[in-house]
Amino acid sequence: MTTSTVQALPKFLETIRKIKSYEEALGVLYWDLRTGAPRGGMEARSEAIGHLSADMFRYQTSAELGEQLAELEQPEAFAQLSEIEQKLVKETRKEYDRNAKIPAKLYQEYVVLASQSESKWEECKDNDDFASFEPYLDKIISYQQQFIDLWGAAKGTRYDTLLDLYEPGLTTAELDRVFGGLRDQLVPLASAIAASPHQPDTSFLQQKFAIAGQKELGNYILKQMGFSFDKGRVDESVHPFATGLNPGDVRITTHYYEEDIASALFSSLHEGGHALYEQNIRAELTGTTLSGGTSMGIHESQSRFWENVVGRSKPFWHRYYRELQSFFPGQLNVSAEDFYRAINVVEPSLIRIEADELTYNLHIIIRYEIEKLIFNEGVKAADLPAIWNEKYKQYLGIEPPNNAQGVLQDVHWSGGLFGYFPSYSLGNMYAAQFAATMEQEIEGFWNLVEEGNLLPIKQWLSEKIYQHGKLKTPSELIQGVTGKPLDSGYLVRYLTDKYSDIYKL
Amino acid sequence: MTTSTVQALPKFLETIRKIKSYEEALGVLYWDLRTGAPRGGMEARSEAIGHLSADMFRYQTSAELGEQLAELEQPEAFAQLSEIEQKLVKETRKEYDRNAKIPAKLYQEYVVLASQSESKWEECKDNDDFASFEPYLDKIISYQQQFIDLWGAAKGTRYDTLLDLYEPGLTTAELDRVFGGLRDQLVPLASAIAASPHQPDTSFLQQKFAIAGQKELGNYILKQMGFSFDKGRVDESVHPFATGLNPGDVRITTHYYEEDIASALFSSLHEGGHALYEQNIRAELTGTTLSGGTSMGIHESQSRFWENVVGRSKPFWHRYYRELQSFFPGQLNVSAEDFYRAINVVEPSLIRIEADELTYNLHIIIRYEIEKLIFNEGVKAADLPAIWNEKYKQYLGIEPPNNAQGVLQDVHWSGGLFGYFPSYSLGNMYAAQFAATMEQEIEGFWNLVEEGNLLPIKQWLSEKIYQHGKLKTPSELIQGVTGKPLDSGYLVRYLTDKYSDIYKL
Repeated sequence: MTTSTVQALPKFLETIRKIKSYEEALGVLYWDLRTGAPRGGMEARSEAIGHLSADMFRYQTSAELGEQLAELEQPEAFAQLSEIEQKLVKETRKEYDRNAKIPAKLYQEYVVLASQSESKWEECKDNDDFASFEPYLDKIISYQQQFIDLWGAAKGTRYDTLLDLYEPGLTTAELDRVFGGLRDQLVPLASAIAASPHQPDTSFLQQKFAIAGQKELGNYILKQMGFSFDKGRVDESVHPFATGLNPGDVRITTHYYEEDIASALFSSLHEGGHALYEQNIRAELTGTTLSGGTSMGIHESQSRFWENVVGRSKPFWHRYYRELQSFFPGQLNVSAEDFYRAINVVEPSLIRIEADELTYNLHIIIRYEIEKLIFNEGVKAADLPAIWNEKYKQYLGIEPPNNAQGVLQDVHWSGGLFGYFPSYSLGNMYAAQFAATMEQEIEGFWNLVEEGNLLPIKQWLSEKIYQHGKLKTPSELIQGVTGKPLDSGYLVRYLTDKYSDIYKL
Repeated sequence: MTTSTVQALPKFLETIRKIKSYEEALGVLYWDLRTGAPRGGMEARSEAIGHLSADMFRYQTSAELGEQLAELEQPEAFAQLSEIEQKLVKETRKEYDRNAKIPAKLYQEYVVLASQSESKWEECKDNDDFASFEPYLDKIISYQQQFIDLWGAAKGTRYDTLLDLYEPGLTTAELDRVFGGLRDQLVPLASAIAASPHQPDTSFLQQKFAIAGQKELGNYILKQMGFSFDKGRVDESVHPFATGLNPGDVRITTHYYEEDIASALFSSLHEGGHALYEQNIRAELTGTTLSGGTSMGIHESQSRFWENVVGRSKPFWHRYYRELQSFFPGQLNVSAEDFYRAINVVEPSLIRIEADELTYNLHIIIRYEIEKLIFNEGVKAADLPAIWNEKYKQYLGIEPPNNAQGVLQDVHWSGGLFGYFPSYSLGNMYAAQFAATMEQEIEGFWNLVEEGNLLPIKQWLSEKIYQHGKLKTPSELIQGVTGKPLDSGYLVRYLTDKYSDIYKL
């Protein structure tokens, strides 16, 4: 090992550990805010978060870190780094450049604007008042356009730069390919389902299920999945979420509704999937910024795999329906098969977060197509309501009666989250593709599910996906694990098979 | 306003806000660790705490802060500061000098030692092995002696320097006076009580009380005291504690034991008292280091006032005993008077934290006298077991059968907490003295308690004590509120009256 490597490496690793410590502390503060922090303390807490975030950003963009990176990137030094260290240098360089390219003053203006814009959105959504929100949205878009200019649209279209924030390496060209295939096949499938005379009966779900039983049920299912309560905890919050503070402390939340047993049940499976990923990242990566999911899409593939591919499957309910009944004695008198059909009902709807497993993807594709129009074609906020409504009519056959249930429904754009929506459908596609490989590689895959023997599945996922954290890119993972690049055909086949059975198509 | 004031003040206030933000963030991290953080994440969490603590310490001891202080301390600038700003400059100077006088290397060594020593203490307590703990204790003492040398024993004895850490301005001379009086009167009072034929019957407390009922009861009592659930929350932890993150977010914990209804009940009153103090500090002080209790002793006076003076009083139980019974239907069939006597039983015991309201003070005086011997007379760890046992025989009439139940019982010394113990009895004395003033100033004080109208009491305390935070020193407060300096006579009279009635002396 040369002197140059020896000199910069420990300092670099210490800087990374410090950044990770700030990330963890901020993670606890955000978790706390969302799980019951007294509202009286919000103002002071926001200030604390502001101070810590500013200091973390200072570490992330410091001249010292720049020098450490430059030294470690020297070919002679770089060659002597371990694989993990090399990856860490590359990842850190990417983040460093991304952060450093935006002038501090511009970023501060943007943070203030984004916060105002989110508040304005909330108000405008409540009042169905798109006109008042429009100037904010245009400003947010204009800042994002400036960021793209500063970051540089390296390859492909301007929108690629935003996609890369959440799904590193993914291009608009590739998304056009996979989303195009998905859209073309799912639109007719949804129509066929709507036309089927064999609609599931969901009336028996319209009853009250005691919260205490729902809690026990959720925790029971989490244990079955392999969620470790020594390395995590479950709390309640308005909107369910998962947060991996470190692999030994991964927290999820859910929200129990007495009138809706499915909500907390499937959110536990969903957030539990995110949590399994984070709990099983290899210990070697702890204290580095590689200890996390490799992309939003891959992360979402794990939540959706457990929620939908496993959690809404027939074998799963052949095994767990009796258990479910036992948590609510005398309340569920239909068959396992009827229950399975009821939790898999498909129906075009206006609101993304209430959508079923199939039409959900159409909601995403609509947003993706609109985001491309904004960043690649220069479409302005004023045009969005009409475009939105037209696409809903075209893909889902329904039209929003107002903007509150249309273009104003999601918080994302108000806070500048462009390029993020595709992750959700990427998750569905990755999940279906991983599942197809599992069916081949794990002997008797569906029998295991039917026996309630889920740990071999968790084990397989840990080995193939979870343990690697950010060591592999999304495309390396999907190619390495399944032997093929991302292909929407797996999701189409999965949905077609599943719903052909349920709706007797 | 001169230019000099204008220049340094905003920067100084921003530094203070930043330090306060770090304190708050660390407060949340500690609270989280003690209320259910998954044990798997402890190591990474400790590292995060270490990084944030180090950065906070850097802000607290920075050259910039030193320059800001020096500028603001110039008579011309200082005269133009508001009262709060002046106090803040003085407080910050005190902390700054205290921190800056200890070389970083020495302090780091000490932190490592203290952590090892605490672990060693735990092990040695379990094994009743004082000999193995002795060298650690001697080392801890020797560091503390070095700190005293560095800080400078400004006035009085060397031990005064340690006292000042927890009770600013308090001297050994004054403590000798008040503790001397207390000891001389409480030792014979405890003997008379032990000899009384009228011992309360506590047998009816030996039954199971459902945890759910205990929780409801505790929260009900907290609401009655005026604890705001919009500005605080209640959780569970192994050892109950209170933490004021900011006046709008003050958290307490308790621990429920099915076999012991008194434990959670009185810990709720105790921690609730600490919380009322922190919740009612004036908003002007938020974001400054003056937003907190003025000393450990004054803080403890509030917890002890609510726990003992109010919470173990006859009028309180004349009002709340029926309520208590209603939480546990059919379980409590004795009279309110018998209940009152049972929760006020006095009995000399070996363990401080299990001691009653009266003998508790003797446990503290023993520790105080030993701490003086260590720091003023150079007594070594090896001599402590014999001294300890002799004092227990002398003041409490009982002798520990081993060191685990003797000199090894408290964690404090293992972690270097010398000068802290007196706070507990100071709290009792302050509480009795404040209560005597309340009886004169609040019309029908005990009638209010008997009516369950506790809010005027909270209001009085807020006005006289809580709102001021650290704006007033402990001696300014006790003198200002009661018109007299600290006087142990109030506690002696309170205890004598109370127990003369209960034990028919």
